[in-house]
Amino acid sequence: MSHASSQAISFFQALQQEIIDAFETLEPTARFEKTEWEHIHGGGGKMQVLRGNVFEKAAVNWSGVHGETFPMDDAKGPFFATGISLITHMKNPHLPTVHMNLRYIETATESWIGGGYDLTPMGCVYPEDKEHFHKTAKKALDTLDPELYPRFFRQAQEYFFLPHRGKERGMGGIFFDHHHSGDFMQDFALLQTVGASFLPAILPIYQKRQSTPYSPEDLVVQSKLRAHYVEFNLLYDRGTKFGFSSRGNPEAILCSLPPSASW
Amino acid sequence: MSHASSQAISFFQALQQEIIDAFETLEPTARFEKTEWEHIHGGGGKMQVLRGNVFEKAAVNWSGVHGETFPMDDAKGPFFATGISLITHMKNPHLPTVHMNLRYIETATESWIGGGYDLTPMGCVYPEDKEHFHKTAKKALDTLDPELYPRFFRQAQEYFFLPHRGKERGMGGIFFDHHHSGDFMQDFALLQTVGASFLPAILPIYQKRQSTPYSPEDLVVQSKLRAHYVEFNLLYDRGTKFGFSSRGNPEAILCSLPPSASW
Repeated sequence: MSHASSQAISFFQALQQEIIDAFETLEPTARFEKTEWEHIHGGGGKMQVLRGNVFEKAAVNWSGVHGETFPMDDAKGPFFATGISLITHMKNPHLPTVHMNLRYIETATESWIGGGYDLTPMGCVYPEDKEHFHKTAKKALDTLDPELYPRFFRQAQEYFFLPHRGKERGMGGIFFDHHHSGDFMQDFALLQTVGASFLPAILPIYQKRQSTPYSPEDLVVQSKLRAHYVEFNLLYDRGTKFGFSSRGNPEAILCSLPPSASW
Repeated sequence: MSHASSQAISFFQALQQEIIDAFETLEPTARFEKTEWEHIHGGGGKMQVLRGNVFEKAAVNWSGVHGETFPMDDAKGPFFATGISLITHMKNPHLPTVHMNLRYIETATESWIGGGYDLTPMGCVYPEDKEHFHKTAKKALDTLDPELYPRFFRQAQEYFFLPHRGKERGMGGIFFDHHHSGDFMQDFALLQTVGASFLPAILPIYQKRQSTPYSPEDLVVQSKLRAHYVEFNLLYDRGTKFGFSSRGNPEAILCSLPPSASW
């Protein structure tokens, strides 16, 4: 295990706990339940799932796994991958789904980072929430390099897209993959900056909308839009592909899927 | 349009109507609703969807589309593909989901057929239904060649399989792909034989189980198993992949998905 890997693991695990603690402040009584699992080639994960009254289903997972052959096109050979992956499916359709993934990957010859976060309204669309979410991401990234946000914003627009429906998954966000500056500390600072900006980007939205009344018709729309989310995750998501092809834990990979969906 | 293509189209369209008529005899009042669509490169489809009280959702689709480049690995260049594709999602969990697809494909240099049908219980498992379903398929295929059923049975076991869950989708059935004897009339007889055996394979099961009482717990199990069906169709199904990569109608491709599913 390299020093960089250990640093990434500690950071992701601490971030996982920080987000869990913050989410639980919004939830009256239900709490995250932890499941630990071991990977077939070494390493494993800590999956934390909350099924509550505000968060109908939220999953905040950490994993750190070894593999013999990197399963995607951008590298080869033995690898170590560690990351945090989270998603929320809110009971109230006025509260959007949010997703974040941050990862650090190391092979014999190179290492890189990837990830991002994005916001998906489930039928109730608030332009001011989009503005707050993006402004928070921009403000954080601008502290490192003002060229990052426009680039990551564009990459999110391309990545969080459903070709078969000809539409973006939601209101976008930021996305980057196979990112390496040549200096691990600089890459690590980017992971830390994105990670630290996540809660300020989403929590104010949840606090503001939490008590907005909703109708049975709103729930019908929510359920249809959740179906599009399922389609994205199973048809296009790189994390899902990576997870299955690296023989990850199917329960951990699929716990991103919504509590219910309808077609 | 070749003579073989025209024959295949007529056969699939007649089979579509026959199955629709038979399904409607089980349904008190709801009826199939037809949507016609045109393909971007020529041709199109007739999608028929029933949302009723016995069939919570059933789709019986015909399509016949031209394309510039065959989108799968087993052929190249311009092609014509026509087929019938159907699925049922039954309200009563004692009634299994059934799926059938039959297709005829023609390129400049070759033509072949493919398809099959399979049975998926949604929590209520009846070994005698499996036996009836498979016996009907075997009896039909044996009239052509006693080697077909064992081969198609094995291919269905391999194809209707969820690697990430390490389980078969359901109780199996028959499956064949890129099948060509060199004699179109012989291939066409196979399509006709499989097509004609479909209703005798499934209808007696539906008639027998239709009035079996079920509990709210049965519905919870049904909804979880429907989720596995979604996973199969979006992660592995060749028809879904073919549909999207040949720029088919997304509504027609995805109308195989269950009315609801839960994770």
